[in-house]
Amino acid sequence: MKVATFGEMMLRLKPSESKRILQSDSFEVAYGGAEANVAVSLALQGDESAYISKLPKNLLGDSALGTLRKFGVDTEKVHRGGSRLGIYFFEKGASVRGTNVVYDREGSSFATAQSDEFEWSEILTGVNYFYFSGITAAISNELRLAILDACKYCGKHDIEVIFDTNFRGKMWTPDEAQAFSKKVMPYVNVVLANDEDFEASLGIKAFDGDMRHGLDQKDSFKAGMREVIHQYPNCHTVASILRNINSVEDSKWSALLLRDGDFFESVVYKLHIYEGVASGDAFGAGLLHGFLHEFKGQEQVDYAIAASVLKLTVSGDLNLVSESEIRSIMQDGGSAMNR
Amino acid sequence: MKVATFGEMMLRLKPSESKRILQSDSFEVAYGGAEANVAVSLALQGDESAYISKLPKNLLGDSALGTLRKFGVDTEKVHRGGSRLGIYFFEKGASVRGTNVVYDREGSSFATAQSDEFEWSEILTGVNYFYFSGITAAISNELRLAILDACKYCGKHDIEVIFDTNFRGKMWTPDEAQAFSKKVMPYVNVVLANDEDFEASLGIKAFDGDMRHGLDQKDSFKAGMREVIHQYPNCHTVASILRNINSVEDSKWSALLLRDGDFFESVVYKLHIYEGVASGDAFGAGLLHGFLHEFKGQEQVDYAIAASVLKLTVSGDLNLVSESEIRSIMQDGGSAMNR
Amino acid sequence: MKVATFGEMMLRLKPSESKRILQSDSFEVAYGGAEANVAVSLALQGDESAYISKLPKNLLGDSALGTLRKFGVDTEKVHRGGSRLGIYFFEKGASVRGTNVVYDREGSSFATAQSDEFEWSEILTGVNYFYFSGITAAISNELRLAILDACKYCGKHDIEVIFDTNFRGKMWTPDEAQAFSKKVMPYVNVVLANDEDFEASLGIKAFDGDMRHGLDQKDSFKAGMREVIHQYPNCHTVASILRNINSVEDSKWSALLLRDGDFFESVVYKLHIYEGVASGDAFGAGLLHGFLHEFKGQEQVDYAIAASVLKLTVSGDLNLVSESEIRSIMQDGGSAMNR
Amino acid sequence: MKVATFGEMMLRLKPSESKRILQSDSFEVAYGGAEANVAVSLALQGDESAYISKLPKNLLGDSALGTLRKFGVDTEKVHRGGSRLGIYFFEKGASVRGTNVVYDREGSSFATAQSDEFEWSEILTGVNYFYFSGITAAISNELRLAILDACKYCGKHDIEVIFDTNFRGKMWTPDEAQAFSKKVMPYVNVVLANDEDFEASLGIKAFDGDMRHGLDQKDSFKAGMREVIHQYPNCHTVASILRNINSVEDSKWSALLLRDGDFFESVVYKLHIYEGVASGDAFGAGLLHGFLHEFKGQEQVDYAIAASVLKLTVSGDLNLVSESEIRSIMQDGGSAMNR
Amino acid sequence: MKVATFGEMMLRLKPSESKRILQSDSFEVAYGGAEANVAVSLALQGDESAYISKLPKNLLGDSALGTLRKFGVDTEKVHRGGSRLGIYFFEKGASVRGTNVVYDREGSSFATAQSDEFEWSEILTGVNYFYFSGITAAISNELRLAILDACKYCGKHDIEVIFDTNFRGKMWTPDEAQAFSKKVMPYVNVVLANDEDFEASLGIKAFDGDMRHGLDQKDSFKAGMREVIHQYPNCHTVASILRNINSVEDSKWSALLLRDGDFFESVVYKLHIYEGVASGDAFGAGLLHGFLHEFKGQEQVDYAIAASVLKLTVSGDLNLVSESEIRSIMQDGGSAMNR
Amino acid sequence: MKVATFGEMMLRLKPSESKRILQSDSFEVAYGGAEANVAVSLALQGDESAYISKLPKNLLGDSALGTLRKFGVDTEKVHRGGSRLGIYFFEKGASVRGTNVVYDREGSSFATAQSDEFEWSEILTGVNYFYFSGITAAISNELRLAILDACKYCGKHDIEVIFDTNFRGKMWTPDEAQAFSKKVMPYVNVVLANDEDFEASLGIKAFDGDMRHGLDQKDSFKAGMREVIHQYPNCHTVASILRNINSVEDSKWSALLLRDGDFFESVVYKLHIYEGVASGDAFGAGLLHGFLHEFKGQEQVDYAIAASVLKLTVSGDLNLVSESEIRSIMQDGGSAMNR
Repeated sequence: MKVATFGEMMLRLKPSESKRILQSDSFEVAYGGAEANVAVSLALQGDESAYISKLPKNLLGDSALGTLRKFGVDTEKVHRGGSRLGIYFFEKGASVRGTNVVYDREGSSFATAQSDEFEWSEILTGVNYFYFSGITAAISNELRLAILDACKYCGKHDIEVIFDTNFRGKMWTPDEAQAFSKKVMPYVNVVLANDEDFEASLGIKAFDGDMRHGLDQKDSFKAGMREVIHQYPNCHTVASILRNINSVEDSKWSALLLRDGDFFESVVYKLHIYEGVASGDAFGAGLLHGFLHEFKGQEQVDYAIAASVLKLTVSGDLNLVSESEIRSIMQDGGSAMNR
Repeated sequence: MKVATFGEMMLRLKPSESKRILQSDSFEVAYGGAEANVAVSLALQGDESAYISKLPKNLLGDSALGTLRKFGVDTEKVHRGGSRLGIYFFEKGASVRGTNVVYDREGSSFATAQSDEFEWSEILTGVNYFYFSGITAAISNELRLAILDACKYCGKHDIEVIFDTNFRGKMWTPDEAQAFSKKVMPYVNVVLANDEDFEASLGIKAFDGDMRHGLDQKDSFKAGMREVIHQYPNCHTVASILRNINSVEDSKWSALLLRDGDFFESVVYKLHIYEGVASGDAFGAGLLHGFLHEFKGQEQVDYAIAASVLKLTVSGDLNLVSESEIRSIMQDGGSAMNR
Repeated sequence: MKVATFGEMMLRLKPSESKRILQSDSFEVAYGGAEANVAVSLALQGDESAYISKLPKNLLGDSALGTLRKFGVDTEKVHRGGSRLGIYFFEKGASVRGTNVVYDREGSSFATAQSDEFEWSEILTGVNYFYFSGITAAISNELRLAILDACKYCGKHDIEVIFDTNFRGKMWTPDEAQAFSKKVMPYVNVVLANDEDFEASLGIKAFDGDMRHGLDQKDSFKAGMREVIHQYPNCHTVASILRNINSVEDSKWSALLLRDGDFFESVVYKLHIYEGVASGDAFGAGLLHGFLHEFKGQEQVDYAIAASVLKLTVSGDLNLVSESEIRSIMQDGGSAMNR
Repeated sequence: MKVATFGEMMLRLKPSESKRILQSDSFEVAYGGAEANVAVSLALQGDESAYISKLPKNLLGDSALGTLRKFGVDTEKVHRGGSRLGIYFFEKGASVRGTNVVYDREGSSFATAQSDEFEWSEILTGVNYFYFSGITAAISNELRLAILDACKYCGKHDIEVIFDTNFRGKMWTPDEAQAFSKKVMPYVNVVLANDEDFEASLGIKAFDGDMRHGLDQKDSFKAGMREVIHQYPNCHTVASILRNINSVEDSKWSALLLRDGDFFESVVYKLHIYEGVASGDAFGAGLLHGFLHEFKGQEQVDYAIAASVLKLTVSGDLNLVSESEIRSIMQDGGSAMNR
Repeated sequence: MKVATFGEMMLRLKPSESKRILQSDSFEVAYGGAEANVAVSLALQGDESAYISKLPKNLLGDSALGTLRKFGVDTEKVHRGGSRLGIYFFEKGASVRGTNVVYDREGSSFATAQSDEFEWSEILTGVNYFYFSGITAAISNELRLAILDACKYCGKHDIEVIFDTNFRGKMWTPDEAQAFSKKVMPYVNVVLANDEDFEASLGIKAFDGDMRHGLDQKDSFKAGMREVIHQYPNCHTVASILRNINSVEDSKWSALLLRDGDFFESVVYKLHIYEGVASGDAFGAGLLHGFLHEFKGQEQVDYAIAASVLKLTVSGDLNLVSESEIRSIMQDGGSAMNR
Repeated sequence: MKVATFGEMMLRLKPSESKRILQSDSFEVAYGGAEANVAVSLALQGDESAYISKLPKNLLGDSALGTLRKFGVDTEKVHRGGSRLGIYFFEKGASVRGTNVVYDREGSSFATAQSDEFEWSEILTGVNYFYFSGITAAISNELRLAILDACKYCGKHDIEVIFDTNFRGKMWTPDEAQAFSKKVMPYVNVVLANDEDFEASLGIKAFDGDMRHGLDQKDSFKAGMREVIHQYPNCHTVASILRNINSVEDSKWSALLLRDGDFFESVVYKLHIYEGVASGDAFGAGLLHGFLHEFKGQEQVDYAIAASVLKLTVSGDLNLVSESEIRSIMQDGGSAMNR
């Protein structure tokens, strides 16, 4: 069983610790992106994963590609070309100062790719699951076309389609996102939506008040999840992370899974957060791992949320953990010293 | 409207993270000092600010000066001369180990300056607010004379005088501090006093027990603030940060403002602290920004405490934040990721 | 009064901050080991301490030895020889991800030492307290023999024997540990046991459920401590740290001391943890300092737990704090800024 | 006397030491650009300099601007707007591996600026020297128009125009460069051309063989320089650095100045090079300093080449040296320890 | 055409710059080993290469493996198991202080592997060239057996055998090395020997005096090379780097190739050396690349020495360069800035 | 045989690599001083050495002291007290930019010590050689008195006195230095003088032109050395380093020794210099080692110059090398890789 993910990989530049850009004379270098993160997570958990993207033919593109290969991702389907690697500057927040992202991704090799550069019949041969996120769709109209082409191909070839809605307010508007969702959702089998994603990406109301207290709105979330299935009967699974966020460091996390008509709820984790980024991708990879290994619903949601909260302890976009580490969190909640 | 601040800028040397001096083979370099911090905060918030001091004519003095210029402070009135830049070694604490400062500031260019090196009629031309702290006064008798000269000049030329009492027990005694306050307070229009400052600097009792639980003693603080106005009728405003400190990382912050006879109380922030230094200076700059832009009392205290708690998330002495970042904290308490 | 400790010193390699080995291109270097940590703690608190071990005659061995000397430990009795310095890789955890240790200590100079390389009559001349931990015993049968030889010598020469049980599941089994304890305990005067150590090392049940909530099981711990004295009447003191562990960063710590038939309980510290390693060694050193200076039981347990929680704020294996810093925690719980 | 320079400032990202991008997990951060470098050099040598450019209104733009202010450059005329700060990745070479630059400057705020955004009559008020380089011209047609507008304004208002030809083969072709030169040279009073610049930028042959041995071709250089004056009689000064390059670390440097009909030759420096970048800008700033202070021709060329070779000892694009340090090189060739 | 290399990969720990272990509190992390270096070089030059080894199943083994994958090496044939990853500490020298290596490789997973763990008929399927070095042979008798088994298999299956003699005086004696050579050489088709290797590894005298002046002894080297062919007629190619070493930073490099009876000499490079390690491996990879692409003798030796001297400019064991970068050195000797 | 050295130890703060203070946001930390360097060199070469000084009783003083202990120096005679540790900022030069030192040593604990704080009869018990340098004498009149007291005590108790003239133009004038030399030289048995020291410190002309070409003036140096013996017959040995300095990185070093009437000349080293500081102290320690072990004149000068040039390869003030490493340089000139 093999998963392919489709998206953009970027260079992430981060001041050390929680320093600000204005005071930094060095940046930590990392490479990531939602779909690349999912591919790496799966590979590290022992699954077969492939990445589909376009990277420039220069040293930055080589470095991004090398990062994927290092962690075991199949990169045969990554095109090389275009003029630059997208960049984002990442200021890790602290306390009341939220983490801040400065995007510098315009004109990247992937953002300027044409939809017909991706020959899906060739790319998706041997693939069982196709994963993309709303970020890919937000980049350009051409990429939206490419996604739709891919989804149509999947529909005809028994490839499951997983769509992480992942709304990014700095990239497009809710109206644009919803217009895209209307087109793509009929092909989607599994959808992920957290916090504001339901309303912004899908146009479905899933909460009734402050998104920082998602855990307190479980019922309205469940109603929203059911509404997704109702509107898009091809979709058999909806999953969502619910969180109460107190500060950059301090929050509570849980997950809801609606699969084949049944709801599954994970335990609630009370967390000290080390770096709050890409945990949604880790969650998606956890769900996928569950599908690949035919987990039951409860095991799947417990595994996925454990993968997700473990990501909050790892620096960078990539969830550098193994299946056994995730299982250890599932079993006892983690935190013990291992010596 | 222009603010001038008068004080000492030092080289701050800090082991990385929360390491101790004994185990460090490198120090992070920063430049700061209470009054310089205020000037930088104002400049970054878009205000016109000037710094008055004396720095040595060597590469360390150049670096301190360049730091001020980088962030937009007017440095025309900084003298160059004397023999050295003051230094302080800064061990960031953790949990029960409080942050520790080793001063090495004796004999600095500023500490050895004579009072007549500062020609106030020339320096304060065009200035509307004159700010200094008790640290400047604690350095030497000559600097106390210089402050008094400046205050007298301000009194005659409609320049508002702001005095942050800022008591430092490693620099002088409460008796010395109070003797100075008696002389200078008749010229002061705005006074800032936190925690122990009331009693140590002003000789006025503002709390009744453990300073680590200031929030629980709001009433006695209010009484103390009223007493300041009673003793020094030239002073129209008293402001104070109240905090409950649980550990180096964990505390609650709030502020009280007594302005033209009315009390204003800010909300209370429950905080995870990244680096607990210079937040009083950030508070003072926030208050000044309020005066410069004619904030009402409630807006002023809310803005000032938001500026102050934001400083707790920034490494170094300087509050590297913009007005819009402060306002974002005021509006929703902060912590959200911005992408 | 002089303390000698007997154990292995290793090179500790740690990714920066809480990074993982997989993503690190540099490691922070430190040198430590339970018994070396105790010797350094004592020296920094002004006591006379000596270290007994074997280190390779190469640059790594020189560096380990130099570290001990830097902090004032007498290293005259450290043999040089054998083929390598033991190493351990240390991934500092965060939140639910527990701190992880990868040992690479097989074949080290100390691990391959023969029992007759340690001539106790010469080594222990002038020594009043002999300290070792279960880690030394876990390394090899030869070292177990060496410990027994040393203990017998101590018994005949009025040297107090302190045994920190320090069970390490990656090094030996409870059965092996208990077999050794049966042999050595008749010579031991002071025993330290935390958490699982009671059962794993001594075969005595001291808790009744989840070790992560030791504080909630004070009574069963007391029963276990009494049982130690009952089984080994030569042992006059038993001490134990009790903790409730919520996450890598967040826990509560307290200590129990049973000395000459009386129980002493320390206050409970609610802690944010900076680096959770070697606090048991710091506790042991605190107890020893109490014996050396004839503290009463209550002072002794309060001092030892203050030393222990202070260690949780210091990076590396060594508790780089002074007696006055420990006393400051005892007096007011710490956390205040000192300037 | 005031100098204004017009060009692009970029973020420079460099692996530490001479590491390669492929193996780096951090980049050193610096900000620079040919014309910014000249402005900073002049300010550090005590001259009045202003910078003209366009920077994005984000944290990267703020950082670039702050860097200029730190070193004393007047930044009042820097526009803010557009979408991004240009970036270049800089791999410092070693031995046979030449220093490598990966440009990522397309779409920058400056590169997308329109010529009419620069109102020269307002910008150049109070300016005596206007400096730009061929890099600015290579960026876009709009910027070529802006330069020509500025030059015309200078011609009418007695502002000296200095043009550093600075050919960049990765940015435009010799044909494009020469076409621009034909248009701009009639307004230029001082031209700088090194190595290949003569032929590539001006279409004038100045050497006869290997550019790595410029010192061996002094005569053909002189002929080329005379030809410049011949073709463009408005140009009174031509200056050129001549070098023999043996390896990244090892070369010989000298300079030729043709001013008002007379040739001046500097001494030859045999150099170990620490970082070989931006020394041409340092040379240009040295020449300008000479004009500002009315140096005679010999002093001017000696000062300029000393400034230039000193830059080879400084990391980053900016020549962080003072006039007295440059003069010390002129007097004794440098290298002595100063203590 | 595919190359397989067989050897040990180790963790390399290096103080920053040229610091000494005694003064370092961090080590730079790299992974390498002669045969791994060859495999990486080939992959980066676009060739198909596979690595054969055994790595422990822990985070260090994962990191080593990930490094190979990052740069495109096929790692399917790497066994996982055994107890530890070999380590070497690397002090980069300077001037008269030679680079110093402290080995800590005993007991590694590879060193303790049995010869029958390597099933050559399965491992070498599809392989055209089999490469190993004298380092692998020096590790253990089992590995010598494994090499001989592999060579016999190669002999029967038309796989070319390349042997880099690579004598290591800290690992075995000349007698041991020569005994092994006697056994293996009858199967070897290409042999590499530098400096002392001829005599120490092969027992053939190739120079007549100071090994630091190999370039001055070209004739005796040629005689030695011919003697190799004479003794081992199955060997069609002998290659050797000749160098004159003046100091750690300063030397001259050249190469000799004897192939099918003809001698080819490369140009001589006069070099400033950035990090003098693994250049022999880079040379070997260059030769192999020549065989894979059917270079003529002169092109092959020129390409190989260019690859080798380029390695001297790269930090770490791996030659992180592309074929086009090597060709650029061949063409003009390198050193030019590329912008 | 035991050596005691008397001088000041300082905190050295250095930008990384060859960066300038103006661009540095971290400083490397080291501790050193001429006489401390000598004591450490001797201890690392296996000799017994003690240090005499005064250090402040704070964390900086503890760190300096710990550094000495780490490398085996006896620190029993170091007083603790006074107000601060002296500091010097160290900008490592490159090429024509000489290394630059910014002193910040005024008011240090040692500089403000009184002569009677040093009770020589107690301090020098068991000492055979007493070493000090002109730097100690340059600090204060009180320290000059202390030196004279010590020398008188040595004269009466058969303790050899070694004086390294070490002139520092930033600390005192030649007149002051010569006045001191006149008083102290009658007690001195061994004197070291390099470059300008002869004339500036001793008032004896030893060269006739450019000090950067000392090697070319061997004869005049010899005459100066003989003149020292002539004027001060109590002095049996004069030693001097002669160097030709081409640039910060490139020079030639040699040494002359006049002992008991005979001249001994070392070989000449042509060197690439990594960090050019404290090599005179390394030379002095090498000479002392020669006296301690009764080397003949030729061996002594060869050993001392080898120690000295080895220091040029080590970062920091301390010569972190062993006797065997020095001997290896003596034997073959060094530079070979050791693996």
